[in-house]
Amino acid sequence: MLADHVAYEVVFGTDERGPRVGRLATPHGAVETPAFIPVGTKATVKGVQPETLRQIGVQMVLANTYHLVLRPGSDVVRDLGGLHAMMGWDGPILTDSGGFQVFSLSRLRRLTDEGVTFRNHIDGAQMRLTPESAVAAQNALGADVIMALDVCPPYPCPREEVEEAVRLTLEWAERSRAAHRNGAQALWGIVQGGVERDLRERCAARLVEMEFPGYAIGGVSVGEGHERLREVLEWTVRLLPRDRPRYAMGVGEVRDLVAAIGLGVDLFDCVLPTRNGRNACAFTADGMIRLRNESFRTDRRPIEEGCDCPTCRRFSRGTLRHLFASDEMLGPILLSIHNLRFYARLFERFRRAIREGRFETEGRGVLDRYYRND
Amino acid sequence: MLADHVAYEVVFGTDERGPRVGRLATPHGAVETPAFIPVGTKATVKGVQPETLRQIGVQMVLANTYHLVLRPGSDVVRDLGGLHAMMGWDGPILTDSGGFQVFSLSRLRRLTDEGVTFRNHIDGAQMRLTPESAVAAQNALGADVIMALDVCPPYPCPREEVEEAVRLTLEWAERSRAAHRNGAQALWGIVQGGVERDLRERCAARLVEMEFPGYAIGGVSVGEGHERLREVLEWTVRLLPRDRPRYAMGVGEVRDLVAAIGLGVDLFDCVLPTRNGRNACAFTADGMIRLRNESFRTDRRPIEEGCDCPTCRRFSRGTLRHLFASDEMLGPILLSIHNLRFYARLFERFRRAIREGRFETEGRGVLDRYYRND
Repeated sequence: MLADHVAYEVVFGTDERGPRVGRLATPHGAVETPAFIPVGTKATVKGVQPETLRQIGVQMVLANTYHLVLRPGSDVVRDLGGLHAMMGWDGPILTDSGGFQVFSLSRLRRLTDEGVTFRNHIDGAQMRLTPESAVAAQNALGADVIMALDVCPPYPCPREEVEEAVRLTLEWAERSRAAHRNGAQALWGIVQGGVERDLRERCAARLVEMEFPGYAIGGVSVGEGHERLREVLEWTVRLLPRDRPRYAMGVGEVRDLVAAIGLGVDLFDCVLPTRNGRNACAFTADGMIRLRNESFRTDRRPIEEGCDCPTCRRFSRGTLRHLFASDEMLGPILLSIHNLRFYARLFERFRRAIREGRFETEGRGVLDRYYRND
Repeated sequence: MLADHVAYEVVFGTDERGPRVGRLATPHGAVETPAFIPVGTKATVKGVQPETLRQIGVQMVLANTYHLVLRPGSDVVRDLGGLHAMMGWDGPILTDSGGFQVFSLSRLRRLTDEGVTFRNHIDGAQMRLTPESAVAAQNALGADVIMALDVCPPYPCPREEVEEAVRLTLEWAERSRAAHRNGAQALWGIVQGGVERDLRERCAARLVEMEFPGYAIGGVSVGEGHERLREVLEWTVRLLPRDRPRYAMGVGEVRDLVAAIGLGVDLFDCVLPTRNGRNACAFTADGMIRLRNESFRTDRRPIEEGCDCPTCRRFSRGTLRHLFASDEMLGPILLSIHNLRFYARLFERFRRAIREGRFETEGRGVLDRYYRND
């Protein structure tokens, strides 16, 4: 059932704008949406082996172009057989454009119409990213879905800067598309526009005219808060075509996921499950628990009662606490696995609820329980 | 086939003194010997999950009493259901007595006939270990095989000190046995005596009179060199009864393993496969390779051609090099797995060769190839 290109179809979704279940076919298998995409920044989801990802229901992973261009270099990844071979992951992969990292990690940025020059965060060497070089790098990396280079403004940000970011993002989207050379990879456009409704709408409308096979919503979850995030998604999604996948970049808090899925967003990536996992914070249906807490010292219960993940089937909270207290690698490993399974299972529930026409109830139930102790 | 106690039998071994294949039955399953026991210092083989250990042929693991008494405490381990439950490992476990770590890691040691007081290496708190407390701690930890508290002299060491170490080791062996309270656990004695033949022989002979169900050879692989190590093993093993298991503590270099197995030693533990794995050093039949080396940058071959480990089945040298260069956890994880499989497979070969009466040839073949580039 492998496609030779990337294609999306809505499988279930009654409303034009409401939540929907879809299917994203790629040359490396299909993704049932809504789906959560774990982050494998440097060509590895930190501490988790690909066969474990598969086992716990992960369908697609993300890798960061910025990091991989710096190390080991996109040419090296290509020489190693591309990202799939290198990562030992034969499922779908998505790479971002590098834009977000250039604007959040690098120093001494200089932005021109041509592209962006910056000093990288590793050795400070001067580098340059253009729409053409970002696409070329992603062609070499070989992910199934790749992204047009965008300009991601911070929050808060003066309106003129957001306006300029949208102007460049749109120009670069055209140039990215013109530079794209690999028909097996889908190149998606990214909607920017900060929290300015007219700019979001202008950006979305113009990208839709360019007819990308998928649309990302970028520059969200950067500090604007849950309410504004929801608004931005709402303004944007209503302008995106129903038959194309919608991807909210960097969105991963439970309440934001429920809101976004309710609006018809299909894909999400976020470092939360793995980063929190490395910091001893465990996701449970009743909210987050901190496993370094002394109270778990002799606790023989699993992280979450009834959880079907490999960690909960074998290890107690007491063991996890000991592993973190002892700085043992197995702590971050086991907890990342649990947290990723928490996310995968949450999305399985959401997809089922959408199919059964009861997403709103399901989402409210999840939120009531998850945030009850907040 | 689970025993309710620990028992050993020689399964194949024609000579009184030569290499032999044996079977160590424990309440958590049997170990076919000669066997390599990976080190899980703080109740975890660093970075490797127990189901992976099982999958790559690991039969038994070791945990360090000294470390576990310090953190989380042997009472906490007991409250968490014992080491097996805590580690998520239902196979055989061995704990050492803590003696070696007291003499190698702690500070301000004071040794009396009663026991040893020291400041621990974590917070400098003063602690005390006696034969009775070491056994009580190990009874609480719940390993299948536990060790009598010994005094492990450094190398080199004045003869008078080694003599004193043997005197205390023998007294403490008696007291350890008297203090042992759990019939499901086997308590083994440890032969000390440095590189002094008469002291090794005196210690071995006296321990054999005490009729321990198994004998460890301690105070080896502490800097005395391959030739002296071999001599010490030879002097000692000839005095140990044929029907009891023999365990060379901390021995793990390939040439030492071949020598020891040839002399009829059955069990070995060593940090080498995991510690080297964390340092990017990979074991192969042709010797060690350093995966941080620039030459592996675009190398698509597995670590070792033909290796059946999960790492070699999926990942290239180039990926491993990238993971280590990027300080990604997956590097140490994947390489520890490969190295542990290398050891497990080496022992599988040795056991087969012993059964087929060709251990000497096999051992020589392994050494010729492994050290060819030295």
